[in-house]
Amino acid sequence: MFEFRIVAVDAETKARAGELVTPHGVVETPVFMPVGTQGTVKTLAPSDLQKIGARIILSNAYHLYLRPGTELIREAGGLHRFMGWDGAILTDSGGFQVFSLARLNRITEDGLEFQSHLDGSRHFMSPEQNVAIQRDIGADIIMALDECVAYPAERSYAARSHELTLRWAERALSAWRERPGQQSLFGIVQGATYADLRRESAAALAGMEFPGYAIGGLAVGEPKGAMREMVAAAVEELPETKPRYFMGQGFPEDIIDSVIQGIDMFDCVMPTRNARKGSVFTSGGRLVVKNAAYAGDRGPMDPKCTCYACRNFSRGYIRHLFAADEMLGARLASLHSLTFYATMMREMRVAIVEGSFGRWRRSFLSKYEDGGGSGAEAN
Amino acid sequence: MFEFRIVAVDAETKARAGELVTPHGVVETPVFMPVGTQGTVKTLAPSDLQKIGARIILSNAYHLYLRPGTELIREAGGLHRFMGWDGAILTDSGGFQVFSLARLNRITEDGLEFQSHLDGSRHFMSPEQNVAIQRDIGADIIMALDECVAYPAERSYAARSHELTLRWAERALSAWRERPGQQSLFGIVQGATYADLRRESAAALAGMEFPGYAIGGLAVGEPKGAMREMVAAAVEELPETKPRYFMGQGFPEDIIDSVIQGIDMFDCVMPTRNARKGSVFTSGGRLVVKNAAYAGDRGPMDPKCTCYACRNFSRGYIRHLFAADEMLGARLASLHSLTFYATMMREMRVAIVEGSFGRWRRSFLSKYEDGGGSGAEAN
Repeated sequence: MFEFRIVAVDAETKARAGELVTPHGVVETPVFMPVGTQGTVKTLAPSDLQKIGARIILSNAYHLYLRPGTELIREAGGLHRFMGWDGAILTDSGGFQVFSLARLNRITEDGLEFQSHLDGSRHFMSPEQNVAIQRDIGADIIMALDECVAYPAERSYAARSHELTLRWAERALSAWRERPGQQSLFGIVQGATYADLRRESAAALAGMEFPGYAIGGLAVGEPKGAMREMVAAAVEELPETKPRYFMGQGFPEDIIDSVIQGIDMFDCVMPTRNARKGSVFTSGGRLVVKNAAYAGDRGPMDPKCTCYACRNFSRGYIRHLFAADEMLGARLASLHSLTFYATMMREMRVAIVEGSFGRWRRSFLSKYEDGGGSGAEAN
Repeated sequence: MFEFRIVAVDAETKARAGELVTPHGVVETPVFMPVGTQGTVKTLAPSDLQKIGARIILSNAYHLYLRPGTELIREAGGLHRFMGWDGAILTDSGGFQVFSLARLNRITEDGLEFQSHLDGSRHFMSPEQNVAIQRDIGADIIMALDECVAYPAERSYAARSHELTLRWAERALSAWRERPGQQSLFGIVQGATYADLRRESAAALAGMEFPGYAIGGLAVGEPKGAMREMVAAAVEELPETKPRYFMGQGFPEDIIDSVIQGIDMFDCVMPTRNARKGSVFTSGGRLVVKNAAYAGDRGPMDPKCTCYACRNFSRGYIRHLFAADEMLGARLASLHSLTFYATMMREMRVAIVEGSFGRWRRSFLSKYEDGGGSGAEAN
């Protein structure tokens, strides 16, 4: 039970409004997925996510495999039941985390040998085992295991690596097809910053007929021009009718830029990580609400926002919570930033449907003056 | 605008059900006040406190005076507006914190000289200044500055100290009467573990005609028998018609014991502090939910509880949140423990009103097997 319906396409760009039909509800796209790495969107309860309007969240197979363990989650009835979330869930395979967080011991044709970042214990994960792990977790959308190369990467290494990722994708697909169940498997386009490799990767994956496609290994420090070029190269080769997910992309202006190129799904830890550190996104740009300058400020974080935090608390109070190291600060800031993202995505979608995407974009970006951009901290 | 109405008195004990009428609503007694030392009940939002059924919370003049500063709170329209809480608030004078947290440099007839526990800055606080500070904060009920002696205390020191507290109480009362406004001032009975001093203290304060009375300096490590004797001595001398508040008392069985003796109000950081460390109160006794033993437990923290945490999450999930150091664990545990206290107080009050307090008590205590008791960590 998985379907992707395109509801509207922008006349001037590749932007599209769609619907992901999942076993846990319909998700409107373009969508930003809040990140709940360890089976919880940090500081927030599922009831908060519902109020924000989130219909899908992201979790991570690497983290859940190590703690609390995928068997425990399976026995608890799957991640939805375990964490009390009845909306849709996408799990990342954890490949990126093995490369960025664990101690990676060896990449072989067969899979990944790594040591846990928690206790140093040794593990091996093949593409097939990774599918089994994500099956136990029970997310609605699961990702094929891939090799993530750091930026910058030599062309020869990037080429070998993306070819390995393709072979792994094929193996993950076979394992998944044996028992597809209720889950959908997405393949991940790699190829570092080489447009021809990206095209090659996307074309090969398209030939395998995955239910959806992701673009991985970007937003990791490469220049914005290169990022845009890689997305364009991948999208060219991917089927129109399938959802496209830009992994780890989270800056508002980069999301808009990617929607223009035909991307439907996004995730990033940056908005919530920054929020926990006292820096939030608002309709007027970024606001470091924990700054002493806001101590006496009686206005809300974002005067245009209708979230619980903005309706009830001043910048001065939230600044006090951060200064006093009170958890409620991180919670209110997270709630606000995710509301900002949900609102932005909803407005964007309405604009695409109503044929006013260009106007909405200019208006949004003119108010939203931000020095940020690519280089998001990834998951 | 402050009134205390006694609604019912138990036939067999001194337990009574009452109503505190405050400028921010009516508070039913006996009541347990959640502690929001720094202007926030740790991990919880005001909307959570409303759902728990809290009608009054406690905050602390010492902490708020140092951070964010009482002038800032006054300019923000008072603590209610600053923290977005429209129920009642009681502020402790902060005397206890000067003794337990700050570096106390000197106690003089005039007041307290101390250094901030945050930055070592030097401060002086007289009983009059303390009233002015609490006036700026704007709580519904404020406390007179007192000297808190540690347990055990020599009789001669305890006598001198409680006499100083009485002189300070008189000065606080004069300062408050000059501009009583919307707030009510409570006097604090001291006298360490000497029954005659407690009686002397209570009788003298009763003569000053405060709107309400507190018993301070207990639940700090003294034996339970001594605690009970001191409460009895104080209550004997306090007027029937005024509310009585046992400061820092928070163990369920000790609260019940004190209600029997005629106490109406309680506060303690222990339930929420323990919750943040993964230990909660349930109808079956205390539960260290973070223990590995609960990893696979699919039942709620307390099967009899109807709070959001118990309706939606298993012990296993909450255990995972603590193991993974996720803030949501502390939040759900705090929500539950405060719900447990609110439910206990509500049931107790209904029993007093309906004439079944003895039966309720026996039933509650038979199910609630707890090795705890006095010796609560105080504020």
